[in-house]
Amino acid sequence: MRDVILPLAAGSVILRRATLDDLPAIIALLADDPISAARGDVASSGDIPAYERAFAVIDVDPAQQLLVATSDAGDVLGTMQLTTIPGLARAGATRLQIEAVRVRSDQRDRGIGGAMMRWAVAEASALGATLVQLTSDAARADAHRFYERLGFTASHVGFKYSVPD
Amino acid sequence: MRDVILPLAAGSVILRRATLDDLPAIIALLADDPISAARGDVASSGDIPAYERAFAVIDVDPAQQLLVATSDAGDVLGTMQLTTIPGLARAGATRLQIEAVRVRSDQRDRGIGGAMMRWAVAEASALGATLVQLTSDAARADAHRFYERLGFTASHVGFKYSVPD
Repeated sequence: MRDVILPLAAGSVILRRATLDDLPAIIALLADDPISAARGDVASSGDIPAYERAFAVIDVDPAQQLLVATSDAGDVLGTMQLTTIPGLARAGATRLQIEAVRVRSDQRDRGIGGAMMRWAVAEASALGATLVQLTSDAARADAHRFYERLGFTASHVGFKYSVPD
Repeated sequence: MRDVILPLAAGSVILRRATLDDLPAIIALLADDPISAARGDVASSGDIPAYERAFAVIDVDPAQQLLVATSDAGDVLGTMQLTTIPGLARAGATRLQIEAVRVRSDQRDRGIGGAMMRWAVAEASALGATLVQLTSDAARADAHRFYERLGFTASHVGFKYSVPD
């Protein structure tokens, strides 16, 4: 993708593909979240090689788009990962799945998340996907209202299974 | 993958990668479902080229495994699609996502679905995935009990957005 300018009510952010240099900022965004922290999803310095390996796998996979929203100065303010999933259900519909949506805690209420999501929906259309999907932890009541305002329907239950070590 | 024999309480099924010849049977399984029918996810003969295109995309994508469970005679009794998704969240966890799980209506209560899901969890471990995830329509109460018995946790809300034509 080319870099995109997302206008906000006040100012704008730049949405672009994440690079390896963005990895520490993305890890910090993922960790700066009480629900992730409660389930143990917090980086320690020992995890960095695992994150770097995961980044490399994402980066070469044409089905993945790991994105960051930055300020004009280049500070990473938000992130999300898009995955294109072909399927047979719904008459052979391609789905665009959104994972790991985060906005820096001191930047919320600026409309960054909404602008990112609206871009993702437009990107789904450009990719020929007819369904956009995501799951959100049941405890994230504010996020659920946010997704519903954007036109998403809470039609499904999201099940997770942690594979034993 | 190699063909796998899944033992059931009575008899067994063969789990294998789907081929183009299985497509009509898979489409029939997807259509033989009141919830799919209610949302308009039913094949008409005009959809066949779309299904064939979707099958081709799935078949060449190393992240996708479209599987069928068959009888010894080769009848397709069940299907599911597995997608491997790399990610940064949860310390760079790879996820295995399960979509489009169906068992033929006259074959339910034989344990085919449970055997397929247990195989999928073992496959997740073999692939290095630490999280298995799926969403299930909120109306599928029986399916939710089924996933919970298998050890899945209904921790998330699944949001869907249909992209306007």
